[in-house]
Amino acid sequence: MIATTASVARALCVTIAALVSVAASAAPSGDSRVASYTLSNGLELVVIPDHRAPVVTHMIWYKVGAADETPGKSGLAHFLEHLLFKGTERHPAGRFSQEVARFGGQENAFTSSDYTGYFQRVPSEKLKDVMEFEADRMTGLQLTDAVVLPERDVILEERNSRVENNPRARLGEQMDAALYLNHPYGRPVIGWRHEIEKLTLDDAVVFYRRFYAPNGAIVVIAGDVKAAEALKFAEETYGKIPRQSSLAPRQRPQEPPPASPRTLTLADPRVEQPAMQRSYLAPSFATAKPGQSEALEVLSHILGAGSNSRLYRALVVEKGVAVAAGAWYQSSALDMSKFAVYGAPRDGVTLPQLESEMDAVIARLIADGVTAEELERSKSRLIADAIYAQDNQASMVRWYGAALTTGATVADVQRWPERIRAVTAAQVQEAAREWLDKRRSVTGYLIKDVSVPPEKRS
Amino acid sequence: MIATTASVARALCVTIAALVSVAASAAPSGDSRVASYTLSNGLELVVIPDHRAPVVTHMIWYKVGAADETPGKSGLAHFLEHLLFKGTERHPAGRFSQEVARFGGQENAFTSSDYTGYFQRVPSEKLKDVMEFEADRMTGLQLTDAVVLPERDVILEERNSRVENNPRARLGEQMDAALYLNHPYGRPVIGWRHEIEKLTLDDAVVFYRRFYAPNGAIVVIAGDVKAAEALKFAEETYGKIPRQSSLAPRQRPQEPPPASPRTLTLADPRVEQPAMQRSYLAPSFATAKPGQSEALEVLSHILGAGSNSRLYRALVVEKGVAVAAGAWYQSSALDMSKFAVYGAPRDGVTLPQLESEMDAVIARLIADGVTAEELERSKSRLIADAIYAQDNQASMVRWYGAALTTGATVADVQRWPERIRAVTAAQVQEAAREWLDKRRSVTGYLIKDVSVPPEKRS
Repeated sequence: MIATTASVARALCVTIAALVSVAASAAPSGDSRVASYTLSNGLELVVIPDHRAPVVTHMIWYKVGAADETPGKSGLAHFLEHLLFKGTERHPAGRFSQEVARFGGQENAFTSSDYTGYFQRVPSEKLKDVMEFEADRMTGLQLTDAVVLPERDVILEERNSRVENNPRARLGEQMDAALYLNHPYGRPVIGWRHEIEKLTLDDAVVFYRRFYAPNGAIVVIAGDVKAAEALKFAEETYGKIPRQSSLAPRQRPQEPPPASPRTLTLADPRVEQPAMQRSYLAPSFATAKPGQSEALEVLSHILGAGSNSRLYRALVVEKGVAVAAGAWYQSSALDMSKFAVYGAPRDGVTLPQLESEMDAVIARLIADGVTAEELERSKSRLIADAIYAQDNQASMVRWYGAALTTGATVADVQRWPERIRAVTAAQVQEAAREWLDKRRSVTGYLIKDVSVPPEKRS
Repeated sequence: MIATTASVARALCVTIAALVSVAASAAPSGDSRVASYTLSNGLELVVIPDHRAPVVTHMIWYKVGAADETPGKSGLAHFLEHLLFKGTERHPAGRFSQEVARFGGQENAFTSSDYTGYFQRVPSEKLKDVMEFEADRMTGLQLTDAVVLPERDVILEERNSRVENNPRARLGEQMDAALYLNHPYGRPVIGWRHEIEKLTLDDAVVFYRRFYAPNGAIVVIAGDVKAAEALKFAEETYGKIPRQSSLAPRQRPQEPPPASPRTLTLADPRVEQPAMQRSYLAPSFATAKPGQSEALEVLSHILGAGSNSRLYRALVVEKGVAVAAGAWYQSSALDMSKFAVYGAPRDGVTLPQLESEMDAVIARLIADGVTAEELERSKSRLIADAIYAQDNQASMVRWYGAALTTGATVADVQRWPERIRAVTAAQVQEAAREWLDKRRSVTGYLIKDVSVPPEKRS
């Protein structure tokens, strides 16, 4: 099981955007339509038919992530993700994974600030087996100290390799903590080390009973299955689990209005290439007014996607001050999200010099807006990428799952190309003016720590 | 009622340090000793005899502050402080305040991150009346929407005048939020505006029932009363209230190891004098190893108290780059506290220039330590200040109350002069080296916002 960090998970969902909706509108035959249902116990089911090969991708998404943890217990959502592989009365630890592997399937899992997901790709005829397995571990997990405590060590080691030994991940962690002054998005998905170390069996059990329930879950299936059949399987498996009546809508502490530009510098002996990033607090699709999030998508593409983008052309190609430069925007988040620009300086260029050139590119875009050609090219490319991405069942399922667990609907996903197409140049300029305001931002520098002697550098 | 912010309240306690302990050791006659008791319902009572005048100062300290609020409900501890003046069945709103005023008394209240306190100074013969009143409102408050909602507006207005219209308070709020990445000390004591606006009657009642209880309270009395008599009064008033069995020790999310120096800049049109402050995460008395907190007290005095301090002499007198410069340390906090340096540049000097001069002063102290003369002068002055401060009942009571609600004991307070006397030059240098590390810090610049046209500046 792999825990993707929030930013990675969300960035991924942005990239693969809205494939199926395009499929449905491009070829609206009965069987290619996306079907969605809600079982009587509250479980949501989305079925995306794809009959090109006899395989299905099944994911169950729980509406719980790191931002839903009790303060002081960071890492608990991700800990649960690991513990879900520990076995139930009917399926001892490892048994199901072995079966999936035996019939050539794949499985995985991931945790973000807003959701936790479990994934299997299997031959179509194994779909119901997978659903039985997931339904069983939704409430049947058998947790003891003997199971929980060694897994906590595994997670501490995972934190070592993913964060402590990764200067860029450390920078991201520090920046999120400085960007979010009040919202739990400032908390690392994997958890703070000193809090992971204290997580207990009881913490895990309380969290599991609180959040793992059919009315907190969305099952998304893409592949060689008819919607009616998938629904029947769902009723026969997940449908048997009673609703958890105490599960309430998620309400997290929100951000105060941002007031002061922040900076931070992380020095790490392992840094070979200095880099900088700036994150701006920006609305997610769920928190934005209509059109705002779409304008931010287009803005991030024009400003920073690929070698035709403003930042890349100005900093890497024309001025030659950077070896890398770009931007990204994370649209899927239940609460206030972020927009980021980044760059890595060429040898001999300082980070403040690079930052100043980057500021000039942003200022010019705010002052003069974008050209009609940039707008059309970006919109076409975003929509085309979405169409190409239809080819991948997992991408489709992830897009729906991430959207539905962060406040969007199936219709929102399906309307994505149409929403992007509607973005105007004025909206993009306005988005830049409103959200790329330094008072909303944290700028992070990653530099080599030269105070550590070379022989001690890992 | 006045809500002091955490830093003001704690800074005060540092300044007035440990008066009574000195009194007790200087004149250890039976009646001048500090007496302390715990009633069977858990209420703690501390009595500090002072028979110079027929008055008593009575304070009740609740072990609850802004750091104990549920996330998303910031401002609730302070809100309760206001609501405690709203009346009970026996004492309708305002009645007691009028009585205190009628017999020439004073009253007040304050909230910090760690405690909430209520204060009366009255003629000695009114002590029991005050205790009856406080005991009555510990559990007898009558709260309704008609009482709670208008008071919420009062608090929003208080936030306006204390924070929104006060650039230095805004800077402090932003800096605390950036300094504490995980601990609720990053939350303003008065609360974030958007959260205050949503506080409800139910929030207030739940908080009141949870924290206002005899086993969560410490009564400190200084003045013209015998300890035995104060104890008898306490038994007859507070003693009648049952213990709240569900009150648990306070455990807040703790800070991860600080990793990256942070900066922030707050621009406000009302700023006439630019200024800077740097806050370092530093141990409180409660979290420090023996001697560390005392060394930080002495360090803050040598570095930044008064016109003989290192910072003042170097920046204001010798280099002439600053009009103000100093340092302070907040020793009383249940969890990780802070050490701060600050300065305001002379006309024509930039904040980075001032900061660089300040860095040089700190670097020199870390490299070369302090002189024997500086050490002796600072220790003598700290101890003498404490002795002079004995003159003020309120100061004595505040010192005990703040100490006892943040993890210290009566003995710790009494041993304060002895603990300061034991600090060595090596400990001061080590404290500077260990805690004045930029990675532990946030540096805040306060500048004039020149983007706001003069006619719109308030």
